[in-house]
Amino acid sequence: MTTTPPLTVGTGTDITWRTINAIRFLSVDAVQAAKSGHPGAPLGAAPMAWVLWDRFLKHNPCNPDWPDRDRFVLSNGHGSMLLYSLLHLTGYDLPLDEIRNFRQLGSKTPGHPERGLTPGVEVTTGPLGQGFANGVGLALAEKILANEFNRPGYEIVDHRTFAIISDGDLEEGVASEAASLAGTLGLGKIVYLYDDNEISIEGDTDIAFREDVAARFRAYGWHVTEPVDGNDLAAIATAIQQGVDETAKPSLVVVHTTIGYGSPNKAGTASSHGEALGEDEVELTRQALGWEHDAFEVPDDVRTNAGEAVGRGAAAESEWEARFSAYASEHPDLATRFKQDMAGELPDGWDENLNALLGTFDDPIATRAVSGKALHAIAPKLPRLIGGSADLAGSNNTMISGRGSFQPESPGGRNLHFGVREHAMGAVANGISAHGGLLPYGGTFLIFSDYMRGAVRVGALSELPAIWVWTHDSIGLGEDGPTHQPIGQLMSLRMLPNLTLIRPADADETIAAWKIAIENRHGPTALALTRQGLPSLASLGATAGAVGNVERGAYIAKDSEGEPDVILIATGSEVQLALGAAAALADEGVNARVVSMPSWSLYDAQPADYRESVLPSSVRARIAVEAGIATGWERYVGLDGAVVGMTGFGASAPGAAAMTHFGFTIENVTAKAREMLGR
Amino acid sequence: MTTTPPLTVGTGTDITWRTINAIRFLSVDAVQAAKSGHPGAPLGAAPMAWVLWDRFLKHNPCNPDWPDRDRFVLSNGHGSMLLYSLLHLTGYDLPLDEIRNFRQLGSKTPGHPERGLTPGVEVTTGPLGQGFANGVGLALAEKILANEFNRPGYEIVDHRTFAIISDGDLEEGVASEAASLAGTLGLGKIVYLYDDNEISIEGDTDIAFREDVAARFRAYGWHVTEPVDGNDLAAIATAIQQGVDETAKPSLVVVHTTIGYGSPNKAGTASSHGEALGEDEVELTRQALGWEHDAFEVPDDVRTNAGEAVGRGAAAESEWEARFSAYASEHPDLATRFKQDMAGELPDGWDENLNALLGTFDDPIATRAVSGKALHAIAPKLPRLIGGSADLAGSNNTMISGRGSFQPESPGGRNLHFGVREHAMGAVANGISAHGGLLPYGGTFLIFSDYMRGAVRVGALSELPAIWVWTHDSIGLGEDGPTHQPIGQLMSLRMLPNLTLIRPADADETIAAWKIAIENRHGPTALALTRQGLPSLASLGATAGAVGNVERGAYIAKDSEGEPDVILIATGSEVQLALGAAAALADEGVNARVVSMPSWSLYDAQPADYRESVLPSSVRARIAVEAGIATGWERYVGLDGAVVGMTGFGASAPGAAAMTHFGFTIENVTAKAREMLGR
Repeated sequence: MTTTPPLTVGTGTDITWRTINAIRFLSVDAVQAAKSGHPGAPLGAAPMAWVLWDRFLKHNPCNPDWPDRDRFVLSNGHGSMLLYSLLHLTGYDLPLDEIRNFRQLGSKTPGHPERGLTPGVEVTTGPLGQGFANGVGLALAEKILANEFNRPGYEIVDHRTFAIISDGDLEEGVASEAASLAGTLGLGKIVYLYDDNEISIEGDTDIAFREDVAARFRAYGWHVTEPVDGNDLAAIATAIQQGVDETAKPSLVVVHTTIGYGSPNKAGTASSHGEALGEDEVELTRQALGWEHDAFEVPDDVRTNAGEAVGRGAAAESEWEARFSAYASEHPDLATRFKQDMAGELPDGWDENLNALLGTFDDPIATRAVSGKALHAIAPKLPRLIGGSADLAGSNNTMISGRGSFQPESPGGRNLHFGVREHAMGAVANGISAHGGLLPYGGTFLIFSDYMRGAVRVGALSELPAIWVWTHDSIGLGEDGPTHQPIGQLMSLRMLPNLTLIRPADADETIAAWKIAIENRHGPTALALTRQGLPSLASLGATAGAVGNVERGAYIAKDSEGEPDVILIATGSEVQLALGAAAALADEGVNARVVSMPSWSLYDAQPADYRESVLPSSVRARIAVEAGIATGWERYVGLDGAVVGMTGFGASAPGAAAMTHFGFTIENVTAKAREMLGR
Repeated sequence: MTTTPPLTVGTGTDITWRTINAIRFLSVDAVQAAKSGHPGAPLGAAPMAWVLWDRFLKHNPCNPDWPDRDRFVLSNGHGSMLLYSLLHLTGYDLPLDEIRNFRQLGSKTPGHPERGLTPGVEVTTGPLGQGFANGVGLALAEKILANEFNRPGYEIVDHRTFAIISDGDLEEGVASEAASLAGTLGLGKIVYLYDDNEISIEGDTDIAFREDVAARFRAYGWHVTEPVDGNDLAAIATAIQQGVDETAKPSLVVVHTTIGYGSPNKAGTASSHGEALGEDEVELTRQALGWEHDAFEVPDDVRTNAGEAVGRGAAAESEWEARFSAYASEHPDLATRFKQDMAGELPDGWDENLNALLGTFDDPIATRAVSGKALHAIAPKLPRLIGGSADLAGSNNTMISGRGSFQPESPGGRNLHFGVREHAMGAVANGISAHGGLLPYGGTFLIFSDYMRGAVRVGALSELPAIWVWTHDSIGLGEDGPTHQPIGQLMSLRMLPNLTLIRPADADETIAAWKIAIENRHGPTALALTRQGLPSLASLGATAGAVGNVERGAYIAKDSEGEPDVILIATGSEVQLALGAAAALADEGVNARVVSMPSWSLYDAQPADYRESVLPSSVRARIAVEAGIATGWERYVGLDGAVVGMTGFGASAPGAAAMTHFGFTIENVTAKAREMLGR
């Protein structure tokens, strides 16, 4: 910690203010060079950011992966240059050339911070509210891991989650959901600084946002300090310290700032928010803030001052390493597991119990029920698997029995209760995943994947492992009706890059899907599961099963005698119809091959010869069967094929009745095949 | 209004309690008959619901479309039988057989209430939070229309929006967003009853929801009355009256109830929430509540009592009709417009100024900019068009200049400011649409359609007109980077039934798209618009343009000389590439037809011969060009075609650089064509 500097208003010549101004002007200059970006937030929030980073943030610029670092989230990711400036100045591997190349192709300084691309960026932000909720996940992970791994005398896991958040974050529902959850769970190591600049893109925040934010957060169970002057460094430091000292509740510090601070003509206006100030205004701002340096110039004293983070960080990590070594001597198993978990490695034999389930389901069973059993088989072998449901645990089969609920009073409980907050569930799980050490899963009905789509996408973009357990995956769910029946969801989720969607057709495919999900370390995996019971494919005459096949995305579940006249491609609950239709067609002398295709993306990733072996280009008579929207299946059936699928919304009726009503019958599939073959 | 009845605890033999019990048992019996549904909410909430409907709700069961009726929303739509029971008993066209057929195929009593299917159901609910936010839209519409049409002495528009809401609604972010907006806008005619039963599906609400709801809503600027005993009819009535009397703020009444009230073994437990009680428990509940009637039996005295709503409603509407007649005499133009607007009819010449824009854009212009001009052309002719943006008005070009902002202080302002609340924007707009009299639009970036998807879907299911202005529709937006660049969004939105998605290719197509959007009375229309400037297709040699063609979804923008060797299909900003490639190919002697395909769904709705004329089945050499995910385009290019599209996420770079980087160049399209044709 540095000593408290002399304070002036918003600028000054001492080293602290000079550092703050260096942050401001790196940001402004980069935006100006790109002629694109957001100068307003860095100008206004640089003081609080620097106080936080300089006096509180525990981090090691030379090792952004140090497990016990504090996590920092810039939730208003459009202020990315604020973060890039901090990373650059404090010694992260982000050279000045990267700052100069802000927002250019191939740079490490994209328009909004991207996890995995830029050292020190914990989570991808920009879509507002995500970062706020990610931070709740980061803090939740810390609390879970601290409870799991710390031992008397050995605080191996002991760090905080800091964030800068904006009006826009607070307006987003996902942040409201996460704030309520954080308050409920008493995540006391959260300290968020609210950059309250009273300006939104459309003007004064009053036009859309008159609420009393402090009162709202107190209602959630947060500790709130307000108001703090955004140019009063001592007051900011005091308020952050209060937040740090409050360990039973998450803390919010309301910091009053001026957007575009220092810009004579644009400070306090929406115009400073999202566009370059302009050459002239940049110059005027330099004069106003007394910054007598060229564009992109970082004076040596500032570089030295900010660079102290390197030494402090190395010392802090060394101290932790020493502690960890002693811990490892005393608790070798825990230490090994901690390292393994943080590295995301799977322990030997993690899938032993899971594999033992294969082939054990003779009677029809819902894939959601099998999923629950798979979870129970995995969990004891893989303690880092943690999750829950958005208040549908019983329906999603996501509760792990005997492992308790995570609550303020029971931090060792391993079942999370997200409440009816799908979007926060997604973003909190992403935060848990980003923390490292845990593998999160979250359940809801497939239809409500719509509610959490914003988070699912950012997770996919960020390559964050997470498992989405989406049950009630078609009109087969029945009586709940069209409000709850997913129609376009399966297909539309296939359009999201880096999401592995798997819709298993029976118990074994479900078990195999869980294995893939656990092993997928480069992005989220979604399981689409039935409410209704499904017979095993083997019991319907399938000659190939899940093992070794689900991971290929599609496989021949039952081949025809001789060259196929027609190929029936189906997923999930509809594979049984394909098998039934193939049998019926065989009786009529029609050779039908049945392809079970649980995952498009896994199939598409196979070598061409494998794909050709499953769907030979010579066979154009193809019918896809899926109780979701038909549109899109032309990818595999082409212009000459057909689809037994949905063309509109569903209907409230018992599941079997709904299925029949919409044509999901063996008879209909058979008739389509006959029609196609002209028989 | 009836007189206050004698009160007992939760049941009784006077006619009020008998009516409440009739509601309860119709609900319980229907759930039991269906062996599916939610008995807990009706049992607990019937008293508040009946007090509200009997003493406060202004409605006419014989005319559910009476414009000045109060709007009632059951936001926790899973308690649908509560609403169906009320509708049946108060005399709506919902016979007992429909109650008996609860949740059966073809009934008017689906699992969750569906607008358009059941008389008296104002909005489709079930997906939690939607109803809450729809109610904000209903109340907002009332306030706008009251300001527009009322004249001294003539309160033509003067009704309230009531709702019953649940814990689950309050946990959902969309409700938080809408609550903050309602508080900001001072929507004083909202009175919501919160069915606070402290039970969620996963158990006690404490596991996920410990916040102080009353304090939170006060922070939003709501008037809150709490706590009210859910079995104390007088207290409920007093609290509702307080909410009614508070006209400057929306009101929340926190009503403490017991889920499954009266069920000896299931009251107060999650098990009464979402499954039939069981025959035995139904019988025990009958005994506990002293209900000595058979299943589905409605005693005459109850039918008479509840049926008084018919007479009261007819009288109320007659009174209004008389008032409206006098109003029509004094303000004939207003009266005519009111009727026209409520009927959703378009005034003659509404598109006069819009049509005048056609062909006027010679220089390249972004389609978002054209959209803004279209909006300005339409608005003066169609005052009922109202909307705004989720804090991106300047970027979305959604602000109508000179028409002011709707604020508590300026209820005549016609620009709405939704704040950074995409999901609420969607659901509030749906509520505005459901109210009637107004046609809402809402803008954000296409990427954030993900955030509002839950609302967009329910709007499509409900066939509610609304216009989504989604700009920045591809990687062409540039520097903001992959966090903001839509990849799978275009394609995934095509998978949503009843959403008309249009991605215009130039100014004229944009104007035509707006015309289609305004005229679409059976569902939402979404416009995907560019950030970047686009040349007119005509300037690139197109021989056919937007007029008469965009409504067909796809058309031949430029045909080849003679039979096409290859068809290039493109949308939006990529049609220029197709035209450029066709010209280049022509120089090489390759006949390329260019099809502009702004809307899949409109094209698919065309007669087969038109579709064949655009995409002849004989021409299999087809290339689709779209700066979105490639997957899905096989619908039109088949197994022999190719797609110039995205296969992963985008990149932060200037838009043109990003486009080039990902292969969206004339050269690449041309090369693909050559490759396909083996040249």
